[in-house]
Amino acid sequence: MTLSPSDKALVPFVSVDNMMKLVHHIGVEPMLRGLADYIEADFRRWELFDKTPRIASHSAEGVIELMPTSDGEVYGFKYVNGHPKNTREGLQTVTAFGLLANVGNGYPVLLSEMTVLTALRTAATSAMVAKYLAPRDADTMAMIGNGAQSEFQSLAMKAICGLKSVRLYDIDPAATEKAARNLTGMGLDVVACRSAEDSMEGAQIITTCTADKQYATILTDNMVGAGVHINAIGGDCPGKTELAPGVLHRSTIFVEYPEQTRIEGEIQQLAPDHPVTEMWQVINGTARGRTSPEEITLFDSVGFAIEDFSALRYVRDHIAGTDLYMDLDLLADPDDPRDLFGMLLRAGG
Amino acid sequence: MTLSPSDKALVPFVSVDNMMKLVHHIGVEPMLRGLADYIEADFRRWELFDKTPRIASHSAEGVIELMPTSDGEVYGFKYVNGHPKNTREGLQTVTAFGLLANVGNGYPVLLSEMTVLTALRTAATSAMVAKYLAPRDADTMAMIGNGAQSEFQSLAMKAICGLKSVRLYDIDPAATEKAARNLTGMGLDVVACRSAEDSMEGAQIITTCTADKQYATILTDNMVGAGVHINAIGGDCPGKTELAPGVLHRSTIFVEYPEQTRIEGEIQQLAPDHPVTEMWQVINGTARGRTSPEEITLFDSVGFAIEDFSALRYVRDHIAGTDLYMDLDLLADPDDPRDLFGMLLRAGG
Repeated sequence: MTLSPSDKALVPFVSVDNMMKLVHHIGVEPMLRGLADYIEADFRRWELFDKTPRIASHSAEGVIELMPTSDGEVYGFKYVNGHPKNTREGLQTVTAFGLLANVGNGYPVLLSEMTVLTALRTAATSAMVAKYLAPRDADTMAMIGNGAQSEFQSLAMKAICGLKSVRLYDIDPAATEKAARNLTGMGLDVVACRSAEDSMEGAQIITTCTADKQYATILTDNMVGAGVHINAIGGDCPGKTELAPGVLHRSTIFVEYPEQTRIEGEIQQLAPDHPVTEMWQVINGTARGRTSPEEITLFDSVGFAIEDFSALRYVRDHIAGTDLYMDLDLLADPDDPRDLFGMLLRAGG
Repeated sequence: MTLSPSDKALVPFVSVDNMMKLVHHIGVEPMLRGLADYIEADFRRWELFDKTPRIASHSAEGVIELMPTSDGEVYGFKYVNGHPKNTREGLQTVTAFGLLANVGNGYPVLLSEMTVLTALRTAATSAMVAKYLAPRDADTMAMIGNGAQSEFQSLAMKAICGLKSVRLYDIDPAATEKAARNLTGMGLDVVACRSAEDSMEGAQIITTCTADKQYATILTDNMVGAGVHINAIGGDCPGKTELAPGVLHRSTIFVEYPEQTRIEGEIQQLAPDHPVTEMWQVINGTARGRTSPEEITLFDSVGFAIEDFSALRYVRDHIAGTDLYMDLDLLADPDDPRDLFGMLLRAGG
């Protein structure tokens, strides 16, 4: 099929089908734990990375974003869209793919689907953070919003934080039913709840992950008691939040990259100088996490390029020696680099 | 190979091999003319596009860039690296790939190699611009710098501007020999020259396309006479220029996107308010091009995202009905968009 390009001209590609096979090859929970380890390791060396807010192209229907970063040796970026209306047309709200490249010569080294991988990395990040911030012995989670991310969140909390029980709630009972069905037999006690309040009964971890693009109030101030960890996933772009300002004012707030979170996260509702703690500093020991059992900790998560970078590194390392990728003839590779035209001529026979 | 994803989940991919087949299927010169038409059409509606300087990640060895743009209906971006040292290791200085997506739902609609395609679009852009700016009846070009771009430039000038003779010069005679060999039998009178001065004899178009990353002086002030069009390709990043400031001061300067050219082009040597004309305004008739036979016109070309967008549009339109692409399973596509996890479970059999 190809004119035998050299190894460097072929880029390993992981399709959706192969990504799903990789998940089953490794196991969902071991892969979530592995991803969390890679993400934690990259949070620990956070200062080393080139960081920039994502580059967004907005339209009336949604947004297309590029999220690049680099650790000086490897460059990565993710393409991701967000189109809330897509669901109505039977399409994914979010699709994504990503790439790793060698900083030294600029040659791509991995192209991968990232719709499935983003779901996994988002859940792994939430659980890795909850391991640091949730109350000791937290074993019950309220999962509010039972869309595409909910099962991943539940299993990551089980695999990484020892979660035993998940209490599901969604305004659409069919979503809750779907999540409960998917989580059957996975080793979690799964409870379908009739209201957000109901779902929070006995929960030390509260995960909000709803999809509507609006200033919503999934958690009102009086719903949230002391001694919980809130994992707020759904508020992730300008004009899209889930928590009442009162909840934010009672919480100690942890973020990924403040420059981005202040635009996209729950804290877009607060003053631009409202104090937040950068999660990487908690992980490397230079900032405090939870300081008392009564504290309300809030992870105001919007997703950051470094998490995608970690996830792509994990995939790159774990497809080695498998047949779960194909080589794409993505890069021109003439014998003489100056003779691109000669290569083209010879291809014509 | 895949679990029968829907049409929208499959993204047409044009490999290097298929791109070369597409070039031969259409013919090099017809394709250069076709690309020039698409680029010219997009220059004409320039104001409509989202424009942003490229997003660069610099390292000691080179740069990796993302170049996004959108016309409101279609979004496109190019990944491109620039690593001058690569040639020494037998690698391409520049490799690239690109993507088009539907703005309405964020789904990618084309993934393509762009190393070969960038060479073609760069040459098509140069020749499209020369059609507007070169002296009437220009038929001889000095081609200074005989690297990977030189044959494409020569053929585009033939196909689009009616060039009859190309005079090649490079500091490395082997490069000139390679270019001359590749251009044999293509309908151009090809002359290998021993100096830059020699190559410029009788030339109405002077193309400079050298690779060294430095403030070079390929054209000194006394080398350039009246009544020529200079097509300056090689000065395309900070610290990399080819023309003496004196040449710039005697020329009427035309650029793609001033915000980018002032950083990357020849005019980085000039005051930030030095007057330049935006080429799209010449094309849509709101600015003047050449005003006299004696004028020196200079196209200070650095390459802009819209040209890549045009080239990807051309490829998208011309692979339809051919077998010169393969469908990539790049996007997850569960039957129920909220049931990504269920799709993953079912993939496990």
